Amino acid sequence: MTKVTAQMSVSVDGFYTGPRAADEVTGWMQGPEAPGFFRVTRWAVDAAAWRERQGFAGGERSVDSDVVEEMFASAGAYVMGRRMFDAGELPWGDEPPFHAPVFVVTHRPREVLERRGGTSFTFVTDGVERAVELARDAAGGKDVAVAGGGELLRQVLAAGLLEQLELHIAPVLLGEGQRLFGPGLGLGADDGIELVPARVVESPGVTHIRYTVTGRSKLVLDDRGAGGELVGPSQAEQRSAL
Amino acid sequence: MTKVTAQMSVSVDGFYTGPRAADEVTGWMQGPEAPGFFRVTRWAVDAAAWRERQGFAGGERSVDSDVVEEMFASAGAYVMGRRMFDAGELPWGDEPPFHAPVFVVTHRPREVLERRGGTSFTFVTDGVERAVELARDAAGGKDVAVAGGGELLRQVLAAGLLEQLELHIAPVLLGEGQRLFGPGLGLGADDGIELVPARVVESPGVTHIRYTVTGRSKLVLDDRGAGGELVGPSQAEQRSAL
Repeated sequence: MTKVTAQMSVSVDGFYTGPRAADEVTGWMQGPEAPGFFRVTRWAVDAAAWRERQGFAGGERSVDSDVVEEMFASAGAYVMGRRMFDAGELPWGDEPPFHAPVFVVTHRPREVLERRGGTSFTFVTDGVERAVELARDAAGGKDVAVAGGGELLRQVLAAGLLEQLELHIAPVLLGEGQRLFGPGLGLGADDGIELVPARVVESPGVTHIRYTVTGRSKLVLDDRGAGGELVGPSQAEQRSAL
Repeated sequence: MTKVTAQMSVSVDGFYTGPRAADEVTGWMQGPEAPGFFRVTRWAVDAAAWRERQGFAGGERSVDSDVVEEMFASAGAYVMGRRMFDAGELPWGDEPPFHAPVFVVTHRPREVLERRGGTSFTFVTDGVERAVELARDAAGGKDVAVAGGGELLRQVLAAGLLEQLELHIAPVLLGEGQRLFGPGLGLGADDGIELVPARVVESPGVTHIRYTVTGRSKLVLDDRGAGGELVGPSQAEQRSAL
């Protein structure tokens, strides 16, 4: 059964890359995004399965490598943000690493790009719901993977379309950068999107937590365990104890 | 051996409570902070060990309860932010739940408050380093626990004083609220605070990740596994694959 999934590497403080460059002309590698991005994705670069996919030798056979392998194997189609596509189009070259149909959410119509190795890029101008629908049809029973970036992920979450979220939490605090999550979810102070932990994989360099997305629901003020009605002033006690 | 530790409950998107109220007069329970705070701390309130500490019946004996028990048992002294103390002073009453010396970081001198059950509040006006030093001396070989809030935690981290961080990640996205981490760490785009995962405890309602804090270090641009020199344009490939 096709699920809509997302996999993101993220720091403990919630950044998936360094801060966006103020000067767009600066090369990405020399800019402020790169150090944070390299740090949070290092676990994958060190994994044998990731290196094989990129045509590099070496790497470790590890639980991390198994996670990468599973991630590639499960995706039958991708949904991608426009900014990510723009950054990738040239460097990906003739044989992009997806080997599957990719649906790019954009405002600019463009003809389908066919690439070697089974990758195609289809430009979807009528919104994220439509892109996910097309990707579902194209996924051949495998999963639809939200490739990124963060903005697209938030749109997919806000639209209630994401069914599984796997975070690869790199053990580092970056202090600043681009946040994976934020106000783009359109949640008020009294509602949240509920998840259920479905799997945790531990390794020395990263913690993989997979969540099933339950969906939007109202947050409740409980009675803090005291029974009966709300115990007004006790909130400070709970603060202390947590 | 005394360690400086912190324990914080936090949402998947990094909030430890809802947004701060614009209107300070509004009651906390009716304000925007409460729903998010109650949601991220619910795992503890459902735990038998937490209820016992508060004098409530019931609760579950579970791995979560074991985590709470361990948390109370390991702390020999606390360091606390001024805002948290102000919120707690009255509701904590004659017998606050700490049962240990508490050192409050503040700009306002005040005499030591002695309370029943072994809790005392000492007001430290010469900074967070001094408060931690005093707490170390008072901890009797147990740990110094940073009680919160987030601002104090960031100060302790920025000063390089934190040795262990345990996050209790509640499976929910809140979208907005007060972030546990942020720019207060004083990190530039090319440095981070490195951690090492030391323990993960899973339960259906929360994921507990304990980190050892290694310390501040420079982030490096690696060669993405290709060997030799930096491969400029390949960053977009890595984005796609992660």
